[in-house]
Amino acid sequence: MTNPRPFFDRVLVVGLGLLGGSFALALKEASLAGQILGRDANPDHEDQAMRLGLVSGLWSAQARPEAFDLIFLAVPPGQTESALADLLPWLKPGTLVTDAGSVKGPVAQTMQVVLGSHSGVVPAHPIAGWHTSGPGSGRGDLFRHKPVVLTPLATTAPASLAAATQMWIALGARVIEMEIRAHDSLFALISHLPHLLAFSTMGLALDARADLSLVGSGFLDATRLAQCPAPLWADIALTNREALLPVLEAFLREVQELQERLRRGDLENLKQRFDQAQHLRMALEARVGRESGRP
Amino acid sequence: MTNPRPFFDRVLVVGLGLLGGSFALALKEASLAGQILGRDANPDHEDQAMRLGLVSGLWSAQARPEAFDLIFLAVPPGQTESALADLLPWLKPGTLVTDAGSVKGPVAQTMQVVLGSHSGVVPAHPIAGWHTSGPGSGRGDLFRHKPVVLTPLATTAPASLAAATQMWIALGARVIEMEIRAHDSLFALISHLPHLLAFSTMGLALDARADLSLVGSGFLDATRLAQCPAPLWADIALTNREALLPVLEAFLREVQELQERLRRGDLENLKQRFDQAQHLRMALEARVGRESGRP
Repeated sequence: MTNPRPFFDRVLVVGLGLLGGSFALALKEASLAGQILGRDANPDHEDQAMRLGLVSGLWSAQARPEAFDLIFLAVPPGQTESALADLLPWLKPGTLVTDAGSVKGPVAQTMQVVLGSHSGVVPAHPIAGWHTSGPGSGRGDLFRHKPVVLTPLATTAPASLAAATQMWIALGARVIEMEIRAHDSLFALISHLPHLLAFSTMGLALDARADLSLVGSGFLDATRLAQCPAPLWADIALTNREALLPVLEAFLREVQELQERLRRGDLENLKQRFDQAQHLRMALEARVGRESGRP
Repeated sequence: MTNPRPFFDRVLVVGLGLLGGSFALALKEASLAGQILGRDANPDHEDQAMRLGLVSGLWSAQARPEAFDLIFLAVPPGQTESALADLLPWLKPGTLVTDAGSVKGPVAQTMQVVLGSHSGVVPAHPIAGWHTSGPGSGRGDLFRHKPVVLTPLATTAPASLAAATQMWIALGARVIEMEIRAHDSLFALISHLPHLLAFSTMGLALDARADLSLVGSGFLDATRLAQCPAPLWADIALTNREALLPVLEAFLREVQELQERLRRGDLENLKQRFDQAQHLRMALEARVGRESGRP
């Protein structure tokens, strides 16, 4: 099977943090773009992105509207509307508009409202996050060997979906299509919940004034995600709350059952539940086959 | 300050898993011991420990009682009594009896009950766990640059405390003394809770039949601890339940408050709490100064 390499003459990257900066670099390194312009609500990020050569220029609302071939949105989900609101004059029928958001339902809805019936919208979620942030954290190989979920809309043109797919494959990613609600429920569990547990564990440690000089590698790994940008994750949690609240409810039930087992002194039942968890986690480790990173 | 190197002529390591196996290797590599015997409830572990050369022989209740200079206990806390019960004839007044348990209160109490008024008991907790297990996971450098908490008892002889301290320092560890209850509360929060959250997250993923082929590095790090041996961690959680239950209660409150913030749509309040957590976690990262291990 051949995968035709797409090419985008004029590209706009909105949001120049870890994901936007990395995307700009990746496009450039793969020679998939002509001119790459950038835009960020934070002027320091724009300066930094220019200095680092992530983009060749900055977008300006004062410029003569000249249509983009690709608009890549990498802002917190709650900023989708403000990030796109004034871009309508820069769209043409075939412009591919895609994003990197961890929440798809509300974001896709906003994109549709702001961009009307534009058929080039292909909501996307590259699973490539890390806890670093800002243009300086950008890496051209961030998406290599990473899954990217596409959640096409009823209004998405097949040609736009094909272009988005080819683009991600050309950047080294593995493309999966999913239904929007299934995506948001799955990532509430496998991504948003772990972030919230990490923030909550640190919140507890703060309140308890715990002596953290004695933490081991387990605590550090379990709470690594609490280094992620707080405003971004508050935004993600709130935007995905419809899918997240039932997951939190199920998690609370799980911990309450654990409490009950402890109160009853039910060692067998505890072992059994932990054992199921251990088996699933070890099977996952065997499948992802990562370096084991000794202590 | 000089740290005299201790020497233990006859050593018994009870429990030949990650910690016991590593301890035997570390003693041998540092030339701190004459003869190192081993004992494990699992005959496969005993065979493996012999084949790997972790110990030079196996302990037998049928052997002529010949006092040990050091007995190192590395079994799940709930097995403390059965592991020590028949060893009394192998103790002499100065025998150092220490352990590697993550829970100190109930374990120390059991040690005292089983060993009577023996003044050589120095409960210990090396912060050196990893999710691997069994004799094959033993490493001679496991304790190097790791903290070891000692929780001496009212009955502990100063000479035994000094010997335990010198031994851990000679193995490259950093020794901290703590009061038993303070230890158990602190580790309920900074070690036992993260393990339980990891098991619970995997339990939830199991029930939801979640597609784990799409997990990112965040999920993998957040749940790494769920690879730890289930029977050991069920035992630890149960043994430390007095300190652990209030921690779980506080954690449930924290998650419930998070739910409330989400239901109210209170972005500012969410941001604020996550921000406190992020700051504490980043300060910790700066302090431990680990390799950042990119995605």
